[in-house]
Amino acid sequence: MRLKSVLYVLGKILFAAAAILLLPAVCAIIYKESPLPFLLPSFCSLVVGFVLTLNPKKHDRSLFAKDGFICVGFAWILMSTVGALPFLLSGETSSFASAFFESVSGFTTTGSSIFSNVEALPKSILLWRSLTQWVGGMGVLVFLLAVMPKSDNKQSRYMHLMRAEVPGPSVDKLVPKLAETARVMYGLYFALTLAQIVMLTLGDMNLFEAVNHSLATASTGGFGVKNNSIASYSAYSQYVIAVVMIIFGTNFNLFYLLVIGQFVKVFKNEELKWYLSIFAVATAFVAGNIFLRLYSENGFEFSFRHAFFQVASIMTTSGFSSIDFNVWPSLSHLLLVLLMFCGGCAGSTAGGIKVSRIMLLVKNGKREIKYISQPKAIISVKMNGKAVDNEIIRGATSFIIMYGTLFVLSAFLITAIDGVDPITGFTSVATSINNVGPGLGQVGPAENFGFYSGWSKLILCFNMLAGRLELFPILILFSPTAYKKHA
Amino acid sequence: MRLKSVLYVLGKILFAAAAILLLPAVCAIIYKESPLPFLLPSFCSLVVGFVLTLNPKKHDRSLFAKDGFICVGFAWILMSTVGALPFLLSGETSSFASAFFESVSGFTTTGSSIFSNVEALPKSILLWRSLTQWVGGMGVLVFLLAVMPKSDNKQSRYMHLMRAEVPGPSVDKLVPKLAETARVMYGLYFALTLAQIVMLTLGDMNLFEAVNHSLATASTGGFGVKNNSIASYSAYSQYVIAVVMIIFGTNFNLFYLLVIGQFVKVFKNEELKWYLSIFAVATAFVAGNIFLRLYSENGFEFSFRHAFFQVASIMTTSGFSSIDFNVWPSLSHLLLVLLMFCGGCAGSTAGGIKVSRIMLLVKNGKREIKYISQPKAIISVKMNGKAVDNEIIRGATSFIIMYGTLFVLSAFLITAIDGVDPITGFTSVATSINNVGPGLGQVGPAENFGFYSGWSKLILCFNMLAGRLELFPILILFSPTAYKKHA
Repeated sequence: MRLKSVLYVLGKILFAAAAILLLPAVCAIIYKESPLPFLLPSFCSLVVGFVLTLNPKKHDRSLFAKDGFICVGFAWILMSTVGALPFLLSGETSSFASAFFESVSGFTTTGSSIFSNVEALPKSILLWRSLTQWVGGMGVLVFLLAVMPKSDNKQSRYMHLMRAEVPGPSVDKLVPKLAETARVMYGLYFALTLAQIVMLTLGDMNLFEAVNHSLATASTGGFGVKNNSIASYSAYSQYVIAVVMIIFGTNFNLFYLLVIGQFVKVFKNEELKWYLSIFAVATAFVAGNIFLRLYSENGFEFSFRHAFFQVASIMTTSGFSSIDFNVWPSLSHLLLVLLMFCGGCAGSTAGGIKVSRIMLLVKNGKREIKYISQPKAIISVKMNGKAVDNEIIRGATSFIIMYGTLFVLSAFLITAIDGVDPITGFTSVATSINNVGPGLGQVGPAENFGFYSGWSKLILCFNMLAGRLELFPILILFSPTAYKKHA
Repeated sequence: MRLKSVLYVLGKILFAAAAILLLPAVCAIIYKESPLPFLLPSFCSLVVGFVLTLNPKKHDRSLFAKDGFICVGFAWILMSTVGALPFLLSGETSSFASAFFESVSGFTTTGSSIFSNVEALPKSILLWRSLTQWVGGMGVLVFLLAVMPKSDNKQSRYMHLMRAEVPGPSVDKLVPKLAETARVMYGLYFALTLAQIVMLTLGDMNLFEAVNHSLATASTGGFGVKNNSIASYSAYSQYVIAVVMIIFGTNFNLFYLLVIGQFVKVFKNEELKWYLSIFAVATAFVAGNIFLRLYSENGFEFSFRHAFFQVASIMTTSGFSSIDFNVWPSLSHLLLVLLMFCGGCAGSTAGGIKVSRIMLLVKNGKREIKYISQPKAIISVKMNGKAVDNEIIRGATSFIIMYGTLFVLSAFLITAIDGVDPITGFTSVATSINNVGPGLGQVGPAENFGFYSGWSKLILCFNMLAGRLELFPILILFSPTAYKKHA
């Protein structure tokens, strides 16, 4: 590990944190709340960040792949720690584990909460929750890259940072310069969020609600400002949020292609086709299931809307709820849990395994069967018409197995530690590792995660971080090789 | 597909079936029951087998890998169909799906039953159930190889048959000649079974019970002759069966090494160490859990014995029960379900994913983390001190993902079709695909599978066969390439 380079990047992260914390401080002043829970951490971040970046020359070495992963891992833990301070300083919770859980849940865009009554929280705290999601959605280090001065010609060394933070099996540079890519992505992100705020204020939300929900939708995060999430809003607001979730579950590269007019490439994108097909089939299935079993008296639009909303919310791993789906039939429950693991597209703000990895695994499975007939043949797996490198397939299969192992072991630990029922235990971890938000049973959409013990909360935090960063930046922190010098 | 060669092998299988069916017929005569439910299918098998093997010269071509897999797939479906006839002809069930389920459950050594009262079944039917397990444990085609005339110098072409039927990532030939290997294996199998019969008759079982339980233990099958499985027998019998299950969950090659005196190799075997370690840790865990939560008044031996027995039974995928573990705490339930998927060692009669595959996956996971630091390094995964071919790791990772996918989809289908609760649905499929026997909820050790609809029974049969034959011999039957001529 190149310690000085890593510390330098962490210092920069603290500068970013100090700046972002000013926004809820302004909000606090507007709503006549105390801005101190935000100003104090902001000031501390500034001071520590200043110390860490004192010696810019000493870091002037390339960051290797390993350092990139270590940087990202530590950066997210650091951000989450700083992000936990406002919850503690405002006195809304006195437990560090709870505050840290809320902060990790925010940055990782999970949206699980420890608060049983969010409507009683100060508006500045609500905005801080939404804001952590928005920043975490696109990525803290991608943000750093986006705001980096254009003159910095050492950008290429940050490629590893971006690779470690952007979800999916591979990262494409949209434009030759990396910082430019980051800027384009954040620009699109900002523009789409703004568009949603306008759409929502046209409905039955006030500006504050529209801003918070838009920040939490763009990041597929799912923090709301009402105890029943989106359930009390109009059908119009529910449809808008559902459609925007689906949009943010697609690969950002596609938006860029749309902007520069390459419609054919977007239209032919295989992952997008699978993503929309899975979404359509699942919606039809759940709508039929809940209409026949529960809501036949409410008209089909009612079932369709809630199925549409809930499938969009779960598949994009947002976690908003338009209704308490804890009471739905177990068949719909099963499908929703499967969709949690599926997740959205690579390069989106959605969590989960990602549609493109699922595609790779399905295609690889077909290939394994072909290998029986032709054991010595060379059969390639194709995506978008191009052969996929075997290393990427190996990466995807290893990823999914490690992901599954972490899930099962964590679910096991949590059930052991807190003695919850298996449905609660397993869906708590499923919703955490996939960055969704609500689970089933005791962590259903109308419930919260406050009852878990400190240890279980930390395990869930670990899963949220590991899920958001796709395992390796977090796992490498536990590997002794990470701390070897220049290895 | 070389249709004639495949048909020839299937004909031979029918001869074997005809012969094996004579044993319960003799049992029926001894106990003054009707031998017809066995003699009729035996005669029919003989006739059809005779027709299929009429033209021995035409099959005189090598069986390629694909044909081997197809042969094994069809052979098991054929055997299971023939094996279902006695249940129908004896009038014990009138549904073909139920009879087929019982037969598949027998041959695949699963041990799930559709009968709610096995104590009321004729003794000959009970013996037939145990016998299907014993034959299925070591393998139908391995049996054919074992009884093949020594003069047949075309043995090498049957290697693919054996490879498709013996569980685990790779098949070693114990001795240069394949038929010799099969004979050694069946010899050891027979001797160990005989030893157990003697041990059990020394306890509180009569000869009939000892024979049946020994056949079902050696194959890690789990069919019993009492409604409460092994629960009503003495602690001595329970310990004997538990220890023998553990023995049969180990790789048969190790027994052979013991016989020829290579103790060091056995002692150093990595899979054996992992297998026994997992067993010991799980037993300690479950014993502590049930002692503290349920049985503290019964003394620790009681908890230890039932934990020892149940962990052995589930991990080796036998499925006997010494107590109704449906009432155990959910923590023990979770562990037992994990152990179902773990299974025993490669090359044993146990089902599941197999310890050696779990080892490969753990080691591969560690390697993936190392790859982050050294992306271009060549790091090999080692087993027993030797580097493992990357193709074998690729096979193991693909296998586990396809296995997981089949499990999830089947659980989903069954829950959808029969509207059972998720615990029942998921453990029904878990116990089927891993060839265990009992599950939890409505399919707990004191329950049976009779209530499932015909479709669900067929899906469970599919899972039992796919699990026993490690997916490919069954999956290939659904691949169009299988039926291309000479492809």
